[in-house]
Amino acid sequence: MNTEQLFNQIQQKRSFLCIGLDTDIQKIPRNLLDTSDPVFAFNKEIIDRTHDLAVAYKLNLAFYESLGAQGLISLDKTVKYIREKCPEMFIIADAKRGDIGNTSNLYARTFFDFFDFDALTVAPYMGQDSVTPFLAYPGKWVILLGLTSNQGADDFQFSGNPPLHQQVIKKAQEWANPDELMFVAGATRATRLKEIRQYAPDNFLLVPGVGAQGGSLKEVARHGMNSECGLLVNSSRGIIYADNSLEFAQAAAIEAKKMQNEMDKLLSEYL
Amino acid sequence: MNTEQLFNQIQQKRSFLCIGLDTDIQKIPRNLLDTSDPVFAFNKEIIDRTHDLAVAYKLNLAFYESLGAQGLISLDKTVKYIREKCPEMFIIADAKRGDIGNTSNLYARTFFDFFDFDALTVAPYMGQDSVTPFLAYPGKWVILLGLTSNQGADDFQFSGNPPLHQQVIKKAQEWANPDELMFVAGATRATRLKEIRQYAPDNFLLVPGVGAQGGSLKEVARHGMNSECGLLVNSSRGIIYADNSLEFAQAAAIEAKKMQNEMDKLLSEYL
Repeated sequence: MNTEQLFNQIQQKRSFLCIGLDTDIQKIPRNLLDTSDPVFAFNKEIIDRTHDLAVAYKLNLAFYESLGAQGLISLDKTVKYIREKCPEMFIIADAKRGDIGNTSNLYARTFFDFFDFDALTVAPYMGQDSVTPFLAYPGKWVILLGLTSNQGADDFQFSGNPPLHQQVIKKAQEWANPDELMFVAGATRATRLKEIRQYAPDNFLLVPGVGAQGGSLKEVARHGMNSECGLLVNSSRGIIYADNSLEFAQAAAIEAKKMQNEMDKLLSEYL
Repeated sequence: MNTEQLFNQIQQKRSFLCIGLDTDIQKIPRNLLDTSDPVFAFNKEIIDRTHDLAVAYKLNLAFYESLGAQGLISLDKTVKYIREKCPEMFIIADAKRGDIGNTSNLYARTFFDFFDFDALTVAPYMGQDSVTPFLAYPGKWVILLGLTSNQGADDFQFSGNPPLHQQVIKKAQEWANPDELMFVAGATRATRLKEIRQYAPDNFLLVPGVGAQGGSLKEVARHGMNSECGLLVNSSRGIIYADNSLEFAQAAAIEAKKMQNEMDKLLSEYL
């Protein structure tokens, strides 16, 4: 998928919502635990109810790895189910990988070949040769950590002049074009998105931190949108755990619909 | 395990060798492919022949994840086999994880509870709250990326004043004591180890890059050793792929023995 195709999806669905399938087996309705694959059963219901409201799903590997081999089976089934249900969906592995070239090659094989993800989040600390192996797959994307939404972002991401996150976002654009490179930019710092837009005008930004972490969707759109939207705004807990009864998927759809409605208005306002 | 116990192992075995079980199914002897779990079969033979020469094994998750669920089964069996064969072995998950606190908690549960690793490599970009969840497990260690051995280390790790890797190594010492915190410091930059010892005198350093990546063991010991050794020197490809015939484990033992002999001399020289 390239930028144009992603933007087409956004225009068709009037949504730039990414739903985080951070499915914790300790938080899903108890009755699902009787099924053969509770995590997949949960994801399937969420996907059935929300796939028309979102342009992307993001699966954080931590939640799947915590169940060992069974977790990777649930992960694989979830990706395949999304592809079957909605072939044009953008599917993100939120894994924050990055290692020496030899090893990043293997991670790339894992996430783009073995699992059929469209994109992988990557940590920038180890520099160019830890990132470029992921760019060898046509149509696949690197989503590089730029400015994260957590408190610890202040420890190192503002260090130096220009601040580290700006160095990362600028330098990475020498390695890849905007059809294969996004940046993570946290919604808890929406005014920072305006700065980032000055030196990364064309890249999509994956914005976590709306909802449970406190960021405002309006502020994100006002400061971060570009002429092809350029935003994927993620919500995980606020949607998938909207209700912990048997009606969880219906509740998730209601929350996703609220966000999609707001996004529809914001797309009209800014594009 | 704490620093004293690790140092005891080093003294008993006269070795500070860490063997990287970066087992790539595409590189192991063909005859193993007929076994039910080729990766575990390979690891088992390597462990049988080398466990008396090494104080640590390091398993890079990329190699296991590339096989999906089956890879995590091989990983689990390998960790359990090491524990059974050699209970005092220090077992490292080289995963370079790091995420918001909520998610790092889950990674910690995975690597320290579900799998019984002693230590996990962690990437520092996201700061304190991405690192501290791993410190909640008594006796378990964080091995934080400081100065890596790859070329891309130059992209960001020297940025700022003091340079980023120094900021990381200094700041992380405010979060954890040397009984639970090591740093990755690449052997391809052995003279840098001397600098690092000025501001991290007591922490163990995990040193990759000896062997295939070109670092010198003598230089590492000269610049990096402290009064409790303070070094784990890793070799992966140089040992486990020393020979690709049926005699691979014997060849691995010969290479490991060469390193152990050299380490024995270096321990006598510097301690």
